[in-house]
Amino acid sequence: MKAVESKARSVKRARAALYSATTARKNALLRAVAAGLRSEAQAVLAANRRDVAAARKAGAPPVLIDRLTLDADRLGQMIAGLGQVVRLPDPVGRRFGRTRRPNGLIIERMRVPLGAVGIIYEARPNVTIDAAALCLKSGNSVLLRGGAESLRTNRRLVAVIKTALRAAGLPAGCVEFIDTPDRAAVLEMIKRDDCLDVIIPRGGQALIRLIRQNSSVPVIAHGEGNCHVYVDRSADLSMAAEVVVNAKVQRPSVCNAAEKLLVHKDVAGRFLPAVASRLRQAGVELRGDARARALLPGIRPAAAEDWSREYLDLILAIRVVGSVEEAIRHINRYGSHHSDAIVTGRAATGEKFIREVDSAAVYVNASTRFTDGFEFGLGAEIGISTQKLHARGPMGLDELTSAKFVVSGNGQVRS
Amino acid sequence: MKAVESKARSVKRARAALYSATTARKNALLRAVAAGLRSEAQAVLAANRRDVAAARKAGAPPVLIDRLTLDADRLGQMIAGLGQVVRLPDPVGRRFGRTRRPNGLIIERMRVPLGAVGIIYEARPNVTIDAAALCLKSGNSVLLRGGAESLRTNRRLVAVIKTALRAAGLPAGCVEFIDTPDRAAVLEMIKRDDCLDVIIPRGGQALIRLIRQNSSVPVIAHGEGNCHVYVDRSADLSMAAEVVVNAKVQRPSVCNAAEKLLVHKDVAGRFLPAVASRLRQAGVELRGDARARALLPGIRPAAAEDWSREYLDLILAIRVVGSVEEAIRHINRYGSHHSDAIVTGRAATGEKFIREVDSAAVYVNASTRFTDGFEFGLGAEIGISTQKLHARGPMGLDELTSAKFVVSGNGQVRS
Repeated sequence: MKAVESKARSVKRARAALYSATTARKNALLRAVAAGLRSEAQAVLAANRRDVAAARKAGAPPVLIDRLTLDADRLGQMIAGLGQVVRLPDPVGRRFGRTRRPNGLIIERMRVPLGAVGIIYEARPNVTIDAAALCLKSGNSVLLRGGAESLRTNRRLVAVIKTALRAAGLPAGCVEFIDTPDRAAVLEMIKRDDCLDVIIPRGGQALIRLIRQNSSVPVIAHGEGNCHVYVDRSADLSMAAEVVVNAKVQRPSVCNAAEKLLVHKDVAGRFLPAVASRLRQAGVELRGDARARALLPGIRPAAAEDWSREYLDLILAIRVVGSVEEAIRHINRYGSHHSDAIVTGRAATGEKFIREVDSAAVYVNASTRFTDGFEFGLGAEIGISTQKLHARGPMGLDELTSAKFVVSGNGQVRS
Repeated sequence: MKAVESKARSVKRARAALYSATTARKNALLRAVAAGLRSEAQAVLAANRRDVAAARKAGAPPVLIDRLTLDADRLGQMIAGLGQVVRLPDPVGRRFGRTRRPNGLIIERMRVPLGAVGIIYEARPNVTIDAAALCLKSGNSVLLRGGAESLRTNRRLVAVIKTALRAAGLPAGCVEFIDTPDRAAVLEMIKRDDCLDVIIPRGGQALIRLIRQNSSVPVIAHGEGNCHVYVDRSADLSMAAEVVVNAKVQRPSVCNAAEKLLVHKDVAGRFLPAVASRLRQAGVELRGDARARALLPGIRPAAAEDWSREYLDLILAIRVVGSVEEAIRHINRYGSHHSDAIVTGRAATGEKFIREVDSAAVYVNASTRFTDGFEFGLGAEIGISTQKLHARGPMGLDELTSAKFVVSGNGQVRS
């Protein structure tokens, strides 16, 4: 596809201008984007109304309509988010890890932009602004590929960014947007390793798998969250109930919500009936293995595929386990390596869980819902990486940079 | 290929045993490998002689024969290398970045193994031991794919490792070796993202490109070094001559040797004739652009493709540039983003070069030959990454790990 190729080349060309842009210039740019969103608010909201109407007409489910919809309040949050990114420290140029070698060489590392970033995301149009802001602040040019449903909204948003880029004296190609709903555009984008330094896909398992299998550009995947809470035999059961209910119910549509509950057999009889009643009151459908069903008569049996599923809904599958070891094996086998929690009163058991559960975020005695750049104190986040390489868990500005070695000498040569 | 699939599954299964192995057990294992190499030395050297004889018969070039050949001395270095890895601190379990959030949550990061690592390398059989030792010390299982020429040697070496694994009570599958010279094995290996967490290819541009284009496993590429030395107008020209000669001549067959010399036009007339005479004395063939040739009559013209080439030989291409900006543009365009140096007397010029040259290691007033895990003080290295994601430059034990978030609370829930 010519259009994708020319836009990939455009972000590649623009890369150099951002690589050495000062913090002041990048912040002025982000402030100009915020000002542009304020003055273009009516046009953006009108474009969004057309997207929403088209999605409704096409029979999109309510959860997608909700994600797609902008209003003055959500636009205000996007503008406020730009202000937050302005206030974050600029990672580019930061030096660390300085050592002096016996031969007098000073070796240190320095954060530099990754270069040109490709972002593939779904319906939410706020990602267009949030992701572009984080990429620009960290000195990266960005090629955006949003959801087909939000095409009209995204066009307006990118027009605002491009106007701000020109006003800041930066190439308009610093931010490009793939302006077609065609899936082939994604497949073309992920082959442009001659132009892009990294692809960040945010989406379901099928999209991530398609990209992993076909991308020649390095990928930082933001995949699903099939998150677990394990209630140990030593748990404070009232704390456990609070954590389970919060992790499941507080916002079930997000990736750090719990989808599975594992309970130690010694406390299952006391714990499950009480927590089940609270979960049902909150509208949660329960599914269980044979032992859970013996304690919670009438709940639906969990099918084999339930253990690997991300529901993003008010559903919770429950399994009774014989030990912390069995819980850890279950999580490592069926989980998505996102966020998993233990509730326990024994420090040694918590420590074992921490060491052996192979997930981006491992919790002791807290809700999985905290996996988030703001909650972890990183400032804004571009998403939550579910892979092990480069970035794991909430991914902030630092993870949008690379660290090069800087070596300073006074004529050292190797003998 | 059934053989590759079963070995990939084997390292995947073995992963869990290493994930939680103690430092003492891993060190005992490495000592047992060293002991095994000592007692099996004659068998290893005999297998190597058969490899060398076969390679000679097949007409392999002397540089490959040299890389392939083991003798008592080189075997001794491999054994000593194991001792060095034993002494390196174990990164697994190390916690860092601890913060306490306003809600009382303690957030920290913890180094954990990547999991199962695939390593694709060429003739040198010492890589079999070095790479396996670094992977095992960092808690990773490893699938090795060495060069076809070293098959007999590698078989013996891997047998020694497997004996040591069994003696240490660890699964023999912690280290597997693809026992076929067939290139199809590589293509199968890089599709096993169901078993492998990362592929580390070490080799030329064609191999790296093949793997990048086809791997569904995340890749940390160890590619070529087309390294530059730029001599600025403000350089101390005698220091510059020392740096250029060292970077080119001290060991021309390695990736951190200089392949290109850029000289500022204001000093080219004074600098080039003198340095050329020293380089020629060391047996270096010079090639140049028109301006270099005007100053060095009789040298061969550099062809367009020279600027992108890694010679790994006593050849140096020279270009005269008008400014530091032109040098930076040249390096970023034609270089391989490995190691590049400036010789300058002006701090501001050095700083500009540091900031704008997009390479794994950027030098001011020192030879590029220092890009190496030992020289940088990281201890042993598994290689030198030429990519931007995850690991950049010399890659030690830390880069063979991932950092997960550990969150400890006393019942915190999100509101």
